Amino acid sequence: MIHWNDLTTLASFDKLKAVGRVDLKQAMAGAEGAARVAKYAVPMAAGLTYNYAAKAVDDDVLSALCDLAKEAELTAKYEALYSGEVINTGEKRRVLHQLTRGQLGADVMADGVNKRAFYVSQQEKAADFARKVHAGEIANADGEKFTTVVQIGIGGSDLGPRAMYLALENWARQNDTLKMEARFISNVDPDDAAGVLKTIDLKRSLFVLVSKSGTTLETLTNESFVKDALRNAGLDPAKHMVAVTSETSPLAKSSDYLAAFFMDDYIGGRYSSTSCVGGAVLSLAFGPEVFARFLAGAAEEDRLATEPDPMKNAAMLDALIGVYERNVLGYPSTAVLPYSQALSRFPAHLQQLDMESNGKSVNRFGAPVGYPTGPVIFGEPGTNGQHSFYQLLHQGTDIVPLQFVGFRANQAGMDVVIQGSTSQQKLCANVAAQIMAFACGKNDEDPNKSFAGGRPSSIITGDRLTPEALGALLAHFENKVMFQGFLWNVNSFDQEGVQLGKVLAKRVLAHETDGALKAYSKLLEI
Amino acid sequence: MIHWNDLTTLASFDKLKAVGRVDLKQAMAGAEGAARVAKYAVPMAAGLTYNYAAKAVDDDVLSALCDLAKEAELTAKYEALYSGEVINTGEKRRVLHQLTRGQLGADVMADGVNKRAFYVSQQEKAADFARKVHAGEIANADGEKFTTVVQIGIGGSDLGPRAMYLALENWARQNDTLKMEARFISNVDPDDAAGVLKTIDLKRSLFVLVSKSGTTLETLTNESFVKDALRNAGLDPAKHMVAVTSETSPLAKSSDYLAAFFMDDYIGGRYSSTSCVGGAVLSLAFGPEVFARFLAGAAEEDRLATEPDPMKNAAMLDALIGVYERNVLGYPSTAVLPYSQALSRFPAHLQQLDMESNGKSVNRFGAPVGYPTGPVIFGEPGTNGQHSFYQLLHQGTDIVPLQFVGFRANQAGMDVVIQGSTSQQKLCANVAAQIMAFACGKNDEDPNKSFAGGRPSSIITGDRLTPEALGALLAHFENKVMFQGFLWNVNSFDQEGVQLGKVLAKRVLAHETDGALKAYSKLLEI
Repeated sequence: MIHWNDLTTLASFDKLKAVGRVDLKQAMAGAEGAARVAKYAVPMAAGLTYNYAAKAVDDDVLSALCDLAKEAELTAKYEALYSGEVINTGEKRRVLHQLTRGQLGADVMADGVNKRAFYVSQQEKAADFARKVHAGEIANADGEKFTTVVQIGIGGSDLGPRAMYLALENWARQNDTLKMEARFISNVDPDDAAGVLKTIDLKRSLFVLVSKSGTTLETLTNESFVKDALRNAGLDPAKHMVAVTSETSPLAKSSDYLAAFFMDDYIGGRYSSTSCVGGAVLSLAFGPEVFARFLAGAAEEDRLATEPDPMKNAAMLDALIGVYERNVLGYPSTAVLPYSQALSRFPAHLQQLDMESNGKSVNRFGAPVGYPTGPVIFGEPGTNGQHSFYQLLHQGTDIVPLQFVGFRANQAGMDVVIQGSTSQQKLCANVAAQIMAFACGKNDEDPNKSFAGGRPSSIITGDRLTPEALGALLAHFENKVMFQGFLWNVNSFDQEGVQLGKVLAKRVLAHETDGALKAYSKLLEI
Repeated sequence: MIHWNDLTTLASFDKLKAVGRVDLKQAMAGAEGAARVAKYAVPMAAGLTYNYAAKAVDDDVLSALCDLAKEAELTAKYEALYSGEVINTGEKRRVLHQLTRGQLGADVMADGVNKRAFYVSQQEKAADFARKVHAGEIANADGEKFTTVVQIGIGGSDLGPRAMYLALENWARQNDTLKMEARFISNVDPDDAAGVLKTIDLKRSLFVLVSKSGTTLETLTNESFVKDALRNAGLDPAKHMVAVTSETSPLAKSSDYLAAFFMDDYIGGRYSSTSCVGGAVLSLAFGPEVFARFLAGAAEEDRLATEPDPMKNAAMLDALIGVYERNVLGYPSTAVLPYSQALSRFPAHLQQLDMESNGKSVNRFGAPVGYPTGPVIFGEPGTNGQHSFYQLLHQGTDIVPLQFVGFRANQAGMDVVIQGSTSQQKLCANVAAQIMAFACGKNDEDPNKSFAGGRPSSIITGDRLTPEALGALLAHFENKVMFQGFLWNVNSFDQEGVQLGKVLAKRVLAHETDGALKAYSKLLEI
């Protein structure tokens, strides 16, 4: 019997608040600081490590966080989730994205089928399709191979798959496994589709239409836009398009598509990169073997997240420290800063994953929570960010916790030595330097050149951003967000906050408005 | 005689705090709401309008803000700035970016020259160069025209120019004025340059190296990377590269470049899009005439910002409302949400512009400020964001003020009618709907489906994102940030917060570290 309680009702949370604060500046100085870097680390999947030495925690805080994890029954809740219990209570749905990449518990039977078998069958279908496209067995009307794959989707059907594609594009090029270039159309702004269509060879492009419900207005609109363009070019849209949707959607059995691959209501959009939502486009772009490696990394990280001891469970510890920073130290936002250009859109994906999951004001039972939940998430790759918003992070009036990611080697295998070091060494030197600058600061006679320090960060390190490492990284954050949702006692798997805007937009388009909404409609000449 | 005083020392700020709070939900309901949309608007340059009806202000708050503007001497400070006074006191520099696009006051003489004439001369030089490239008078060794321009720069030499290029790329394509495609290399991560170089035709590419000091390590490293690639392709780097730098930089008179265009220390990186930093790449990409239209929009907006009455000065009013939200209502972040795919990287530019300018903890005299300054800035284009982080904006525990941008017509002129409306109408209907959903919310029996409302937003509207509109938009935000810096009494034109990381990174590369920094260096195998 699991207990779903608000954070502030837990005795361990009161104890956590009472533990003395850590002076990070002092803790990270000298030999003690070096010892922390060695000690405060948790191994992850795919050779990654979560290092939290520069977080404002010590053994006392960590001990209190371990008690909190236990009292909040994080491990049991995770087990309930992957075992197929209806964790998404608002929408009365299971939460099964972990099953798209592995099986942690007993078989999950739902809708009369084994769900793991179902997800695997869809992956195999997409893999088979991709192989046929790569072999030229599925080709355009002139028998030419498709060279470009274009994903049409929005939100979780766009941000995750796009971030994953960009993360592996250079790696795939370097490893001769870039089978097709991928592009993405998401925005209902017609300039988005127009911009993409003007820069691809339509005749050799394959479109992946992604909508779980088959009713997402942006996506259907962009589908029409693309179909018009195909027809205008004398091409048959049905020979250039596949669908990723649920079996019950109007798209499922349509003859408008070369093929259809299925997910279901148990895969939330923002958790769908490892389902066919990511699987179709990534298998087409990189080959099914690369996608399988990505899934293996995620599966292994999911397995590590079952460890009950937070000191050995990176996702759980990351979640706990984040809650400590949000609800005890009172920091309202978190920056995600990957020192890898390949992860340029990973922060945008995490922004959705985190803010859409935990940006909630009521608990699982609909009662208002009396404490802050999900923070604002933002970020850009380093070193770029250093020349942009880091000024505020270092010397602004608010403290922003930081989440760094860094790899020892780059993807493309090209580099250059300038002033005695490679670019990769410079990249790594910068992230090491930033962690210390944020933690320890520096006094200066000129107050404008002084750095207060005491600004906490963690870093996930790895050898290289491979498909396995990317899968592990993705699963780490998914599981972190899940554990935080458990701690805040919110439902991390619905998104009722997006509904009102949809309803009102429909009213505007139907000209059924009055008051200020009518005035805005006029202003925009709708 | 201008008085530079901290915000909290101003009598008008105390009065502002004492003014009654506005119930936004109530204010925006019914006929009163419609009246606000009509009334609470300020015309901007290029046909834009700043509408703040959905901000939590009323005539009393606005009156108090007007008093604050007066007591803070915002207009006099702006005049001092564009007249060439040393407003960047920390670095003892003038702040002259407005002179790159117009002249608002008397001639500014510095370093023995008329600065406006100097900036214009550099623009003309870049324009002349671009025309010769477009005409094929400047071509590659085989006499072929250059087809791609690649900017190498970081921070202000990257984010602004990149955002501006993306903002006009589709527009230029539609208007047959896309002369060259532009690409950007910024990150010291060698995967950035490798990724760009693998997807362009090196032989027909022209590189624009941008570094004011000529010593930016990332940029020099990427220059070497590119030169290696050019040499390996049997090409002469000196025939493929131009420099944008200051006259005193080591790059200025080098024979390594086809040409050099100059800015100076009075143009901060984040304010440099209208100087040669943006001018060279944008003139090459779109033609000098388009760049001139962009400058004209910015110049006109600068002129409007000289208006002393905030009710007629969009940038000043936007700044005042932002300070009210930050320092009276206590909101720590702001989201920038352009309903235009072309503005996809505009929020990233504003993130630098705003956070690097005003993320400061000491005032102009080095004394700690006793109040919050620059907020966290983040954002993505709508409607994409609606399917991502808007959940938190609608139903999260923190209130995030919102800055919308929307245009009545799209750029590419292509559209499609689905369910009775065009994509452009859907786009506009969504932004109108969102403003109202945020402001007024909705009660529901199911608390999970309830929206508290009371979430403030403004919107800048326009007919279409043209070069003039883009220039006006850019200048609006530059001037908003400047006015906020005046209100917070900080120096918005230096960035000492980036220095410590640079120093420590050098130490890591020289292996001159100990303690935790050495431990991190080992962890990353530097």
